[in-house]
Amino acid sequence: MKGLMTERPLRIADVLEFAAEVHPAAEIVSVRDEGDVHRETYREAANRVAQLAHGLRRLGIKPGDRVATLAWNGYRHFELYYAISGIGAVCHTINPRVPDDQLTYIVEHAGDSLIFADLSLVPILERLAPTLPAGLRYGVLTDAAHAPQSSLELIVYEELLAAEEPLMDWPELPEDTASGLCYTSGTTGEPKGTLYTHRSTVLHALFVSVSLPKILRTGRRILPVVPLFHVNAWGLPYSAPLTGASLVMPGAKLDGPSLFEVMERESVFSAWGVPTVWLGLLAEIEAKGRLPKGLGSIVVGGSAAPLAMVEAFEKKGVDVCHAWGMTEMSPIGTVGEFSDHHAGLSGADRNLQKAKQGRRVFGVELKIVDDDGQKLPHDGKAVGALYARANTVTSGYFRNEAANEAVFDGDGWFQTGDIASIDPDGFLTIADRLKDLIKSGGEWISSIDLENVAMGHPEVANCAVIAVADAKWGERPLLVVVPGETQPSKTEIFALLAEHFAKWQLPDGIVFAENLPLTATGKVSKRTLRKIYAQHVPTDDDKAALVGAMEARGE
Amino acid sequence: MKGLMTERPLRIADVLEFAAEVHPAAEIVSVRDEGDVHRETYREAANRVAQLAHGLRRLGIKPGDRVATLAWNGYRHFELYYAISGIGAVCHTINPRVPDDQLTYIVEHAGDSLIFADLSLVPILERLAPTLPAGLRYGVLTDAAHAPQSSLELIVYEELLAAEEPLMDWPELPEDTASGLCYTSGTTGEPKGTLYTHRSTVLHALFVSVSLPKILRTGRRILPVVPLFHVNAWGLPYSAPLTGASLVMPGAKLDGPSLFEVMERESVFSAWGVPTVWLGLLAEIEAKGRLPKGLGSIVVGGSAAPLAMVEAFEKKGVDVCHAWGMTEMSPIGTVGEFSDHHAGLSGADRNLQKAKQGRRVFGVELKIVDDDGQKLPHDGKAVGALYARANTVTSGYFRNEAANEAVFDGDGWFQTGDIASIDPDGFLTIADRLKDLIKSGGEWISSIDLENVAMGHPEVANCAVIAVADAKWGERPLLVVVPGETQPSKTEIFALLAEHFAKWQLPDGIVFAENLPLTATGKVSKRTLRKIYAQHVPTDDDKAALVGAMEARGE
Repeated sequence: MKGLMTERPLRIADVLEFAAEVHPAAEIVSVRDEGDVHRETYREAANRVAQLAHGLRRLGIKPGDRVATLAWNGYRHFELYYAISGIGAVCHTINPRVPDDQLTYIVEHAGDSLIFADLSLVPILERLAPTLPAGLRYGVLTDAAHAPQSSLELIVYEELLAAEEPLMDWPELPEDTASGLCYTSGTTGEPKGTLYTHRSTVLHALFVSVSLPKILRTGRRILPVVPLFHVNAWGLPYSAPLTGASLVMPGAKLDGPSLFEVMERESVFSAWGVPTVWLGLLAEIEAKGRLPKGLGSIVVGGSAAPLAMVEAFEKKGVDVCHAWGMTEMSPIGTVGEFSDHHAGLSGADRNLQKAKQGRRVFGVELKIVDDDGQKLPHDGKAVGALYARANTVTSGYFRNEAANEAVFDGDGWFQTGDIASIDPDGFLTIADRLKDLIKSGGEWISSIDLENVAMGHPEVANCAVIAVADAKWGERPLLVVVPGETQPSKTEIFALLAEHFAKWQLPDGIVFAENLPLTATGKVSKRTLRKIYAQHVPTDDDKAALVGAMEARGE
Repeated sequence: MKGLMTERPLRIADVLEFAAEVHPAAEIVSVRDEGDVHRETYREAANRVAQLAHGLRRLGIKPGDRVATLAWNGYRHFELYYAISGIGAVCHTINPRVPDDQLTYIVEHAGDSLIFADLSLVPILERLAPTLPAGLRYGVLTDAAHAPQSSLELIVYEELLAAEEPLMDWPELPEDTASGLCYTSGTTGEPKGTLYTHRSTVLHALFVSVSLPKILRTGRRILPVVPLFHVNAWGLPYSAPLTGASLVMPGAKLDGPSLFEVMERESVFSAWGVPTVWLGLLAEIEAKGRLPKGLGSIVVGGSAAPLAMVEAFEKKGVDVCHAWGMTEMSPIGTVGEFSDHHAGLSGADRNLQKAKQGRRVFGVELKIVDDDGQKLPHDGKAVGALYARANTVTSGYFRNEAANEAVFDGDGWFQTGDIASIDPDGFLTIADRLKDLIKSGGEWISSIDLENVAMGHPEVANCAVIAVADAKWGERPLLVVVPGETQPSKTEIFALLAEHFAKWQLPDGIVFAENLPLTATGKVSKRTLRKIYAQHVPTDDDKAALVGAMEARGE
């Protein structure tokens, strides 16, 4: 039997309208390229979003059109999120760090009709314009005084707003209307686009907000290091106004001292970003001998946080919340928040749980399965392919039927591409990316497990484990090490690894490199490493060091 | 353009499954009729809910069937909420205090096929069985040892569960499936039923939870005095498990000393109920000279909280949150939570805002309109008919087309029946119920305003203002006073009122009564008062007292 309740579409515009009314003084603070600090309240932002929406309509933007952004974190980027989706168009965020050919591909594949770029990113568009679609229009996120001379005909953002009314009667949109588009950076194959809806976006904000009540609420000030061009900045542009938290956009400088300064000045309570950023902040905290005033929370995701980092923050009284998600998941799937039954956890056990990837948020279902697709137990031991199902998960890539076939099972679960275990308490541990796993003689070897142990050597600054083709075993692991101040000996590294792994799981060789290649989203590009070391064979000193380590173990 | 995100139905069963997994140790504590205290965790509750669902199916309960409850607050009532809705049936909560004829009407109108009653309420069913539908079956919420001898054939709750599996693969239900049914007590006309859906119920829990992050989160213990038979206990059976808060059900004794004791023993942080209950608790707090340990929050609704009560709690460090809502609104529409810009509010201004009825929660739209249906400004002065629109608002009463016509405007807004103003900060003030307003010579007089001032007299224990028909003015106000320890003089009361109102707004007369008649939900029944005093004409001492008060004012 159907119930008798009003059905109103969940709409993104309502989030900011609500913030403007209920949390009018909560604000967006932006450190600008120019070096100054800009402030606007949610009330002011809502007015400017209305102006922008009218301006977009004047430019001819219609429901369903894709309007792209090429921008760092800042209030104008935030405003684009709301104005574009508010009129039924699609806000397509583009990572400015993707290679030229990918950017060209993405703009063309998305069918963007207009692209707004930060002042500092206009040169990218000028360079690529000849390869971009002929009908594409260009805008620059600045005012008339700062607008650059350009080979492009540029719409000036503030000029566009200036002529318009600061009020908008937002159109009624079905809640499955497309609202946003984000492409994954494509470590294999071409980039693939996830097309978010108003429903998925509002539900994601609600799901995450009820999971993080100590962070997402009035009076809190949150700093997203995670970019607005990267999976919706983990949803903060929606969850912060929804709950009345303020946003502090840190600008381009993300080194430890710069972050410390802005966090202290702006009384930031919670900062969200990838582990490497927090390592830099930690160093500054150690140097200063104190925390930035008011800091109480770090939310970490993107890749696994080292246990030592978790320990260091927790010891200083900063709560570490490990989150996990994907572009295809809006993105957040899990958060490392504790519940009543964790009250008795001791320091070490507590930190071990905190270093895992967290537990599912309400609304997101997770399962791990074996090679035959059979569900595996959540016992903390079984490791399998991780699947997710939720209103916040993609139902298929944009204009890419071929890619869809591989990633959904018969019940509509999305294959995340991760290999994971889930412990009896619901905490997720990502063992590896499926494509990074090394299959040696029919057995799987986790690259992440090897890397985590190798990172424990004091002179290993960074490292990565990749598969190298092997005639006998199929694949064998190779460890690539970025040395610290002095180069560690291979024997020492093998000995350290031999404490934790069986002989067949150990790398066949170790190579030293000055640095590791990164993807556009700042992750280590194992795809590039695999190409570089495709022909690598173990050297004599590899073999000697391995034998030495084995002998020390008595084998 | 449609987006490409998975659409999963919002489902009530998922709330408790989530709590069982993520907040397994949070618990439901129930003070039982027997006098003992029962405890079960959400994990245990989820298992029992699965058993109950299997049991209901064994009894032949099918999707769409209405299963009624006649019960106080307790874990079994909580379990019925989830098991009934989980299998696609409708949980119909009935207020045990409604008059016999209304209860009979409600059960027949709803078409209930089964009704579960608490042990202490079985006599009601035994008494009414001859007038209830022939096919109706009966259940008792107890175990075999306590099952009563009865003229009815009673299904024993614990027997029903005992044979079943504690696991359930909950059916896929469209999110607009009916899940719950609650009748308003009908101060005019027959009771009318609101038919909730899975979508409205889950969204209500999300909307309220993100608005009250300091209350609804892990580690918090919440005591609902508001009954589970009364508009879903303000949604707590859903929002508490969703956020990992524990529930403490206080049992039948709701006097100040009993509440103080259970709150202290169970470390209750937040208690939810109507103002009269908190007046009793306040008296006990004054007597003891301290708060129950851990108490930090009172959520008050159902009727307006006296300013003095707000002041008393706030002074002791207890945060008062005034909420407002209706059965037809799931029920919560507003909560009195502050935001950043309230930080500078001084004590008196702060309390004045806190005594208002709060601001809209996310997802609920409010408007006030004049007699022509034109929107009025939110300036704190304009008073008009209050309308609401939301996913959590009824779209029409159950099997009652006639009643629907009067309550929706052309844009689908629901007429709440309240007359209200909204201040520039979004805070709602309910001026009156539309039907309680007194229309005198074409002008409106607010009964609530008069009552609030009269309550300021130290010897007015309680009071109500009603309309009495008047040949010249149409209607004129009459004040009914329940005296305190000594009877106040009419002159004093008129003098007090004359400080705040124009002469034409003052009552024509004052009558004294031992007590005020109440509705089944504990509100003053003005309908009954109007009947009692329909023929009342001002007496000579009314006139003399009024003249005296006017002379004292210099008129």
